[in-house]
Amino acid sequence: MPEAAHPEPEPRTPAVSRPGGRSARVRAEVVAATLAEVTERGYDGLTVEAVASRSGTHKATLYRRWGGVDGLVADALAASADQPWPVPDAGDLQQDLRLITQEVFTAFTDPELGPTPTALISAAQRSDTGAAALRSFFAARHRQAAEVVERAVTRGELSVGTDGAEVIRAATAPLYYRLFVSGEPLDARTAQRAADAAALAARAGLFTPTSTPPEQN
Amino acid sequence: MPEAAHPEPEPRTPAVSRPGGRSARVRAEVVAATLAEVTERGYDGLTVEAVASRSGTHKATLYRRWGGVDGLVADALAASADQPWPVPDAGDLQQDLRLITQEVFTAFTDPELGPTPTALISAAQRSDTGAAALRSFFAARHRQAAEVVERAVTRGELSVGTDGAEVIRAATAPLYYRLFVSGEPLDARTAQRAADAAALAARAGLFTPTSTPPEQN
Repeated sequence: MPEAAHPEPEPRTPAVSRPGGRSARVRAEVVAATLAEVTERGYDGLTVEAVASRSGTHKATLYRRWGGVDGLVADALAASADQPWPVPDAGDLQQDLRLITQEVFTAFTDPELGPTPTALISAAQRSDTGAAALRSFFAARHRQAAEVVERAVTRGELSVGTDGAEVIRAATAPLYYRLFVSGEPLDARTAQRAADAAALAARAGLFTPTSTPPEQN
Repeated sequence: MPEAAHPEPEPRTPAVSRPGGRSARVRAEVVAATLAEVTERGYDGLTVEAVASRSGTHKATLYRRWGGVDGLVADALAASADQPWPVPDAGDLQQDLRLITQEVFTAFTDPELGPTPTALISAAQRSDTGAAALRSFFAARHRQAAEVVERAVTRGELSVGTDGAEVIRAATAPLYYRLFVSGEPLDARTAQRAADAAALAARAGLFTPTSTPPEQN
């Protein structure tokens, strides 16, 4: 759809563009520039001007398609959620969850890789538009990663009806808690233990919403 | 210690004051005003002027003792961490953890009680001073709540050497993850399940740092 056909686009949901089209190229450049700017300067230093200049896009185009900095942050998150992501398949729930928490650990703590997703999530927490994008981002991640739970159900490792997204939340929450709430350091051992605890709880049937798990006593 | 004795106080660590003294009264008024302002206006709307006016304190006193809005937020968190907090003692780890996660659930989601701690944590995430106060706040909470783990060790319910703070983190992280990271709704069932999963993992020996838990296969 040519840009002229958008007299009043909704700034918070950038136009879906044909893959490889001009619009898709512009989006990719704008997302890359937004990620670079937010990593270098944080949300407080993020400006439409700087993203325009870095991406070689007109400021007017950015305002029209993204609305402003919050729309830019939200779309950078949406683009990240769309990225293909290697869901592990080790043939065992505990190993798969360990690989997932290891992936989260590395994504946020690696000196090279970590600063961009950390800055992006912090920036998204700063506006309602960003918060909505954050909910969609995590919903997409939970859905993708829940595949390891579905496979465990198919293998007979877990009960039918186990809530896959909830198992993924349980495995990863202790990492995100340290990274974005308590601010405590995170290490590989903690990441592995979070996976092991989630696998144990899943096998005990705690994430089967239709059943009331028995008291452990 | 009279205020005149503080020619150049460190703004980020407000003077410790005698309980009941004038300095303690001023601090309590300033903390209350900061909590009210941050709840009504958020970090972006928080000003030293408004806290001065609401607390009936001179602006110069606030700048001298707290340094600015970030010091005010940090001290409001420090004051919260000092509040006596009823650590449950149901005689059973799983029940105690359920009561703790129920407490966190209510503290943040109750329509009357929830907005202030939610706004305070969000505000603290916005500065280095606030982030340091947040780490201290959660460290204090983990330490206090770890008493339920120590009692479980004494009762023989858990292995000697179980990391109490880590059990508390495991029980509460799924709640904080939804509240402050993924932005998903939180319900009482999720709070209870997080407690149950942490109790299960603790009983399986996952939080005994000196041991390597066996594979679950």
